[in-house]
Amino acid sequence: MDKTTALAIAAEAGDEIASRLEFLYELDQLKTVLRQSMLADGSRQENSAEHSWHLAMTAMTLAPLADEPIDVERAIKILLVHDIVEIDAGDVFIYDDAQRAAAEAAEQEAADRIFGLLPAEQGGEFRALWDEYEDRSTPEGRFAYACDRLQPLLLNVAIGGGSWRRHGVTADRVKAINGAIDDGLSQVWAVAERCIDQAVVDGQLLPPPTA
Amino acid sequence: MDKTTALAIAAEAGDEIASRLEFLYELDQLKTVLRQSMLADGSRQENSAEHSWHLAMTAMTLAPLADEPIDVERAIKILLVHDIVEIDAGDVFIYDDAQRAAAEAAEQEAADRIFGLLPAEQGGEFRALWDEYEDRSTPEGRFAYACDRLQPLLLNVAIGGGSWRRHGVTADRVKAINGAIDDGLSQVWAVAERCIDQAVVDGQLLPPPTA
Repeated sequence: MDKTTALAIAAEAGDEIASRLEFLYELDQLKTVLRQSMLADGSRQENSAEHSWHLAMTAMTLAPLADEPIDVERAIKILLVHDIVEIDAGDVFIYDDAQRAAAEAAEQEAADRIFGLLPAEQGGEFRALWDEYEDRSTPEGRFAYACDRLQPLLLNVAIGGGSWRRHGVTADRVKAINGAIDDGLSQVWAVAERCIDQAVVDGQLLPPPTA
Repeated sequence: MDKTTALAIAAEAGDEIASRLEFLYELDQLKTVLRQSMLADGSRQENSAEHSWHLAMTAMTLAPLADEPIDVERAIKILLVHDIVEIDAGDVFIYDDAQRAAAEAAEQEAADRIFGLLPAEQGGEFRALWDEYEDRSTPEGRFAYACDRLQPLLLNVAIGGGSWRRHGVTADRVKAINGAIDDGLSQVWAVAERCIDQAVVDGQLLPPPTA
């Protein structure tokens, strides 16, 4: 037995089952995509699958603090699918503008391929959730994005600077990028902003460059 | 900056925020709880956080094949929280009956402690989701449990037996334990059962002991 044989057996039961099992096997690969963030204990880099779980839990947990009324279940589903394109396109370090721009086409192709494995209607639904994350045109999309900015900030703070320090990111850029937290979780952003300031005081994060 | 300082800053903003951020830091530890299953590429053991993400995606993906009408969002939330107790109680190998019985009290204590970090109302909601997984008294609880039995089976099949082989589990026990898939996803169980039979034919899973 292997994956191919399992999918051949599933194919005999019809495409409704086989296509979905193939998609689930495909998803397993997100566990091998490494992010810049370390775990809060500093032991290793975080992967995008466990990150997605942590974000879904962040949404569930912080929903009562959301600025706008949100459908939390929809925000959870947005966060569950939001990094799936990284299976093909890899993780992009948020502070690397050139890499972010270059990844855009690859991510669109990845979305076509991976969500395209599913029956069309369901693939379209998952794709729409991913688009909602990318566009941030709905309260749920903005809330999901706020969660996705907060969680790595919490991890960096826990280990004294983490990927900010490793990549020489300055405090002004950390605030500019993570200021999106303010668009969905403004009370939490007030705390996060104080943590950023304290990280500068503690010498763990570079101050803004002087003019 | 470290976790303690971040939580002290949060505490000044009030317990509604601080308790939730503490809970989110606590959850990070689920990424270090290792399961018996290997990833589908055989590269390493799976951890309980990425497993929980894969299960939530399994529920989203297989919902159209559910036997009973289900609230899929509730099933997703059940699966997101179902392994959180392992932060204190560790992962239990499903085929180890003695370990499973021994873990029960530890899991109850873990649920008290970890969900108890949250504001009472929300902690109660999360706890109820975990109870629903444990009790399997609702269609969502049964569907979630069926997903939780299917996913490791798919992983074991992908690597030619995996934890079944390593622990000398026989096919009759694999069918008995995973037969719960039949309680929520009967069409998928028919495929899984054929995969189990094929694994025996291929010498990757021990046949039932002869009387």
